[in-house]
Amino acid sequence: MSLHCTHRGKSAPPWEDSRVTANALRASRKAVVAVATAGLLLGKFYTAGAADSPAAKPRTMADVIAESKPSDWRALDPQRTLYIDLPAGRVIIELAPEFAPNHVANILALVREGYFDGLAIMRVQDNYVVQWGDADGKRQVRTANKTLRAEFDRPAKGVPFTALPDRDGYAGEAGFSNGFAAARDSATGTAWLAHCYGAVGAGRDNDADSGGGTELYAVIGHAPRHLDRNVTLVGRVVKGIELFSVLPRGTGDLGFYEKPDQRVPLRSIRVAADVPEADRISLEVFRTDTPAFTALVASRRTRAEEWFKYPVGRIELCNVPIPVRTPPKP
Amino acid sequence: MSLHCTHRGKSAPPWEDSRVTANALRASRKAVVAVATAGLLLGKFYTAGAADSPAAKPRTMADVIAESKPSDWRALDPQRTLYIDLPAGRVIIELAPEFAPNHVANILALVREGYFDGLAIMRVQDNYVVQWGDADGKRQVRTANKTLRAEFDRPAKGVPFTALPDRDGYAGEAGFSNGFAAARDSATGTAWLAHCYGAVGAGRDNDADSGGGTELYAVIGHAPRHLDRNVTLVGRVVKGIELFSVLPRGTGDLGFYEKPDQRVPLRSIRVAADVPEADRISLEVFRTDTPAFTALVASRRTRAEEWFKYPVGRIELCNVPIPVRTPPKP
Repeated sequence: MSLHCTHRGKSAPPWEDSRVTANALRASRKAVVAVATAGLLLGKFYTAGAADSPAAKPRTMADVIAESKPSDWRALDPQRTLYIDLPAGRVIIELAPEFAPNHVANILALVREGYFDGLAIMRVQDNYVVQWGDADGKRQVRTANKTLRAEFDRPAKGVPFTALPDRDGYAGEAGFSNGFAAARDSATGTAWLAHCYGAVGAGRDNDADSGGGTELYAVIGHAPRHLDRNVTLVGRVVKGIELFSVLPRGTGDLGFYEKPDQRVPLRSIRVAADVPEADRISLEVFRTDTPAFTALVASRRTRAEEWFKYPVGRIELCNVPIPVRTPPKP
Repeated sequence: MSLHCTHRGKSAPPWEDSRVTANALRASRKAVVAVATAGLLLGKFYTAGAADSPAAKPRTMADVIAESKPSDWRALDPQRTLYIDLPAGRVIIELAPEFAPNHVANILALVREGYFDGLAIMRVQDNYVVQWGDADGKRQVRTANKTLRAEFDRPAKGVPFTALPDRDGYAGEAGFSNGFAAARDSATGTAWLAHCYGAVGAGRDNDADSGGGTELYAVIGHAPRHLDRNVTLVGRVVKGIELFSVLPRGTGDLGFYEKPDQRVPLRSIRVAADVPEADRISLEVFRTDTPAFTALVASRRTRAEEWFKYPVGRIELCNVPIPVRTPPKP
């Protein structure tokens, strides 16, 4: 067993923007478990799935990204982007007003009135969620709304949807809408965002309409899809999820920190548009409504990397990465 | 919105044994997102799914565990249990010799010859795996085997299997075998372990037969089910997964630590049977071949907790917890 085989060609793990362009030719450490995004195809080919052209050479995600055009990417809109600055760095969230317009508007209002200033992360439950807000229940809401009607789903009509060819365990159909993992049901004619890793939602009490954005959470474990349509999702983390996922787990019930000094302070939460240009982070997200995205999904369904012996031929919604990158220099 | 509603009755989050018995009557912090295991049913009932008896009162997992009999639990066998002592505490792994007999025997031999002594965790990739072994490629294997033939699957015949009623995104059938998440395929007559959160496998190079247990990994993110049948799974973490999942992410390719001093030392890896009784941790795992387990699955398919507005009615393999507890005192 060679302990130091090399893999040429790297592409971005879904949450690490800089590597898409930076590491393209860098030799890697040993890949004992194939990375989600590893490697150029070195020689072994598999027959593509029925949905693919049988004549096409199977491509890896690295190939697809390397061949992508500028128009396959879109810049984050600073008016719907949140920066959460933690002591360890910045978490960036893209909001999804198409799915939760009232919650997104209210979160922007809460952020702008300073609601979150001085608040903290007070809950980190392993394989589940990180949650932040007002642990002490004393913060006043001034101009925004304290609660809102739930936005668990919306009419499927009116939002784009790139469906996956594979069956989903929780919904009639799974796919992507405007860069977010989503699902829909033809019987009800509704669509909703899915609780994949990194999804951000508005916590609530037992009443469906008791949320509104004063407490927010992000998924840091296996996709809790049973929460879909039970809580309003408002967006997803596009950078910095690892700043959440490494936080010490709370030892109280539900992963709450038992002592106030264990909480992780939010240095600031700001709308990117309100941040001086020099302090913004420019990011592009891979579009989910393009032939390039269809090719990306195909590359993840049928794995062409040499490491794979069983090429899979299927994919599950939350295993499809939506790449994020620093825009290449012109 | 009440900021401090209480939930009475708690049961064990899947990886936290002590709470099954310890916190039964403890009032909790606010559950803004319903915990995976939260709460007694407080009053609201939903119609059970078609697979359930419509006359039965829906139960929560807390109910099922509270009503469980001693025979619904089994003690961990110390001959197939590993203790990994890290600076932060102990991770406990149950091995699965029914699925990977040669790998399990080899891992026990590696542990007993001291192969892992002084080695370290050298890779932590967010939403993917933690990996430990010989980062420098200098350690000699003395009595064990350095590599083994892959054990990606086995004949389905001969192992128990409690099938889930729901469709699976990656396999013809998903379910549980001897306490492990598994899958099987009637066309090939094979069964295999599934890459759920906490699954432990034997890393390998590109050659299918290049693993053997000298490098091991544990899943710390969304289930990478595309690895099923591509790598030999050998067991799962039954306690202490959060000691892995909070580790700093490696900044090198594939999440490798870039500097040797970033590695997390393995203080020791031992077979539980070789550890003095006083230093062992007694654990019981919920059996997966009982009516109680069927009831547990039902409680997770159709959610009876008041918090749930949409009772789901489905479940995905890796969202079924397999509870672990400290045995109750006689």
